[in-house]
Amino acid sequence: MAETGVSRILAGFVAGSQWRDIPPAVRREGARGLLNYVGCALGGCGDEAMALALRVLSPSFGPTQAGIIGRTERCDPLNAAFLNAASANVLEYDDTHLPTVMHPAAPVAPGLFALAEARGASGAELLHAFILGVETSCRVGDAVMPHHYRRGAHITATCGIFGAAAAAGKLLGLDAVRMNWALGHAATQSAGLVESLGSMSKSIGVGNAARNGLAGALFAEAGFTAAEQAIEGKYGFAAVASDAVDLNKVTDGLGETWEILANAYKPYPCGVVLFPVIDACLELRKRLAVPATEIAQVFVRGHPLLRERTDRPDVADGRSAKVSLQHSVAIALLQGAAGIAQFTDAAVGDPAVQALRAKVSAQDDPLIPVEAAVVEVKLADGSSIREHVNVGRGTPGRPMSDLELDAKVGECTAFGAPFVDAPALIAAIRDIETLGDAAHIMRMTVPV
Amino acid sequence: MAETGVSRILAGFVAGSQWRDIPPAVRREGARGLLNYVGCALGGCGDEAMALALRVLSPSFGPTQAGIIGRTERCDPLNAAFLNAASANVLEYDDTHLPTVMHPAAPVAPGLFALAEARGASGAELLHAFILGVETSCRVGDAVMPHHYRRGAHITATCGIFGAAAAAGKLLGLDAVRMNWALGHAATQSAGLVESLGSMSKSIGVGNAARNGLAGALFAEAGFTAAEQAIEGKYGFAAVASDAVDLNKVTDGLGETWEILANAYKPYPCGVVLFPVIDACLELRKRLAVPATEIAQVFVRGHPLLRERTDRPDVADGRSAKVSLQHSVAIALLQGAAGIAQFTDAAVGDPAVQALRAKVSAQDDPLIPVEAAVVEVKLADGSSIREHVNVGRGTPGRPMSDLELDAKVGECTAFGAPFVDAPALIAAIRDIETLGDAAHIMRMTVPV
Repeated sequence: MAETGVSRILAGFVAGSQWRDIPPAVRREGARGLLNYVGCALGGCGDEAMALALRVLSPSFGPTQAGIIGRTERCDPLNAAFLNAASANVLEYDDTHLPTVMHPAAPVAPGLFALAEARGASGAELLHAFILGVETSCRVGDAVMPHHYRRGAHITATCGIFGAAAAAGKLLGLDAVRMNWALGHAATQSAGLVESLGSMSKSIGVGNAARNGLAGALFAEAGFTAAEQAIEGKYGFAAVASDAVDLNKVTDGLGETWEILANAYKPYPCGVVLFPVIDACLELRKRLAVPATEIAQVFVRGHPLLRERTDRPDVADGRSAKVSLQHSVAIALLQGAAGIAQFTDAAVGDPAVQALRAKVSAQDDPLIPVEAAVVEVKLADGSSIREHVNVGRGTPGRPMSDLELDAKVGECTAFGAPFVDAPALIAAIRDIETLGDAAHIMRMTVPV
Repeated sequence: MAETGVSRILAGFVAGSQWRDIPPAVRREGARGLLNYVGCALGGCGDEAMALALRVLSPSFGPTQAGIIGRTERCDPLNAAFLNAASANVLEYDDTHLPTVMHPAAPVAPGLFALAEARGASGAELLHAFILGVETSCRVGDAVMPHHYRRGAHITATCGIFGAAAAAGKLLGLDAVRMNWALGHAATQSAGLVESLGSMSKSIGVGNAARNGLAGALFAEAGFTAAEQAIEGKYGFAAVASDAVDLNKVTDGLGETWEILANAYKPYPCGVVLFPVIDACLELRKRLAVPATEIAQVFVRGHPLLRERTDRPDVADGRSAKVSLQHSVAIALLQGAAGIAQFTDAAVGDPAVQALRAKVSAQDDPLIPVEAAVVEVKLADGSSIREHVNVGRGTPGRPMSDLELDAKVGECTAFGAPFVDAPALIAAIRDIETLGDAAHIMRMTVPV
């Protein structure tokens, strides 16, 4: 039976994987994933939640073996993993594994960079471990979705920890038995509630996934035993996580198909369903012959999910603006951009944005796919212009190009860590395969 | 509706509770709970899992503000909370909240002693916070049991974290809003699988409950926001934790009834269902006119749960011996004791114990309650003796007396930390209400 021993099979695959087994396209997407990760962490490193988390955790910081992306502080690898996961996710600018809507990099990558600093690792070793970690998180997620999220589990945290443990375990060179224990330690620490989204508490779930996954690998390395059927066991993760489990998804095609190829990068730091709407508004803005203040009304038509998730005319702060159709439309039309600066508390409070938000309404159209949208702008003089986007940027049909990704990383860096040499950093991460010392990347992200 | 806002109501209760509101019997049971906790941690502090955990975590130890019970090492409060929870639970000698079969003290107490050392607290303040933490863990557990455990959630960890957060929050003096956030941070970190029991990984779940609960309170103190309906919300803890939730159990009779009064202390470091069997065997041993090596056969009759949980003639190590009927009978009859020393790997390997284990068999009797048992010993000469125990020690009908609890703490100390002055420690914990500096207790548990 394929379902027997999936934890053991997955552990054996990760432990046994060779760098030469990783196809070039997968390596390339891995490097893009790391680039997006570091960029997001640079963008988020100055967030209020980060400042508070540092205040809470710094009295417990151990010896300073690891850096905190974009910041001067240094700490022990476990706290670094927590903080660098929190910053990478706090702006909602993550990568997104489309089949599960999980954000894999924030939990998986931080422990790897912390280990690279504390123990040393080459760029290729780190990239290899990252690819395997993403594979692990996504496959465990695939097995328990969609019921897992629907019940209230925040999959980025709950499944991210498996990838964090597997990736760190790979970099530590764990054998198959210890890798199996690392997955067991991940399973018993898996946590995170959808209820916490919209509050700072979300960052604790994502931070813990990175921290506790790394800890799980370190415990396994030391010989700390764990359940060996932690995913599939009678009282294991899958039983707790979902009423509709397909364990074959953990193992089918392992080493042949690669989940990281289904990983997309957000072009805008907001809800995925808003992407085609923003694309349309940015196009319309270019075509507007008059100032956006002349707009009388904006009509949006989209898949019913659009209204269900984002029909939010009143927004209180930058955090809630990220899931507001009205706010996204207003800033795109007024400012011709939808970056980090457009989803801050300041942008939310801008009177012009407030005025335009009130003029935006939306209508369901079940015939429009979720990656498409139609936006019509009616002007004060009675004329109107219209834009139909079939496939939004950052969706499977129109992935972010390398240039677009570079621009995003540049924006994040300028916002959160302007002292960083973004072009040099981008070049180093794209070439991470050839880097002798992966910790070099971390050194490029902090003030000298 | 009583179910609305149970997180807020519970937080308000904990934040608003006054020491004078705590009845004397509750205070007394709280002190007994702390005594049992410290005793168990002293017994477990030298366990192999503890040595490994220290090896893994010590490279990340922060400034040495907090002690590790029974050990010379010191570390930061968060790591201390983890380690002192792991040691208190590792021997399976815990307290047991009978309605949920949760072990409340191991997650709740460690953060309090760590805070007492790092920030200062009186004995009464610590005891008050401990009582409220146990109340919180048990009430959250009551609301989601029995389905929560049956699905695979290790309730000591998953619900213990709520009490750890509430107790630490109380000692930090959080107001009701921040206490609500502390519960929210606890909810989103709630984790632990039954599948991990029987491996060292169990200690990670219990350790994290203490560590992450304390962290949740510290995050809330700093103003780190959280979901305010984290227990009852649509995507909150209860929805994820159980298919049969009764939220009234979180709030009904709050401040009038006290869960700690349903907290019992294990007289033997093994499964609860074995207690009446061991009682019977210890009685029989006194009546045996010949050496136990003359025993031909042992028949045990008990509630069907006894055989279901503990019919384990072949045991590999001390850990599995703790849930073996055959082993428990053998050591009680041969050695006239069933303490820590009787559930070690050495005791398991003793040829005389092995020989007697093979002679033990069990029979179901649905008419016998779970807290009772009948044991019959047949000797080589054909004669037999029989003992019927109606109510085992350490069950609700026959709670551990103060003298019995003192003896248990003495045994634990002698086993794990013989340098400790057990009588002085016991006296100090019984009088903890009058102690100006609760950290004094911690100083009594470590080598000078």
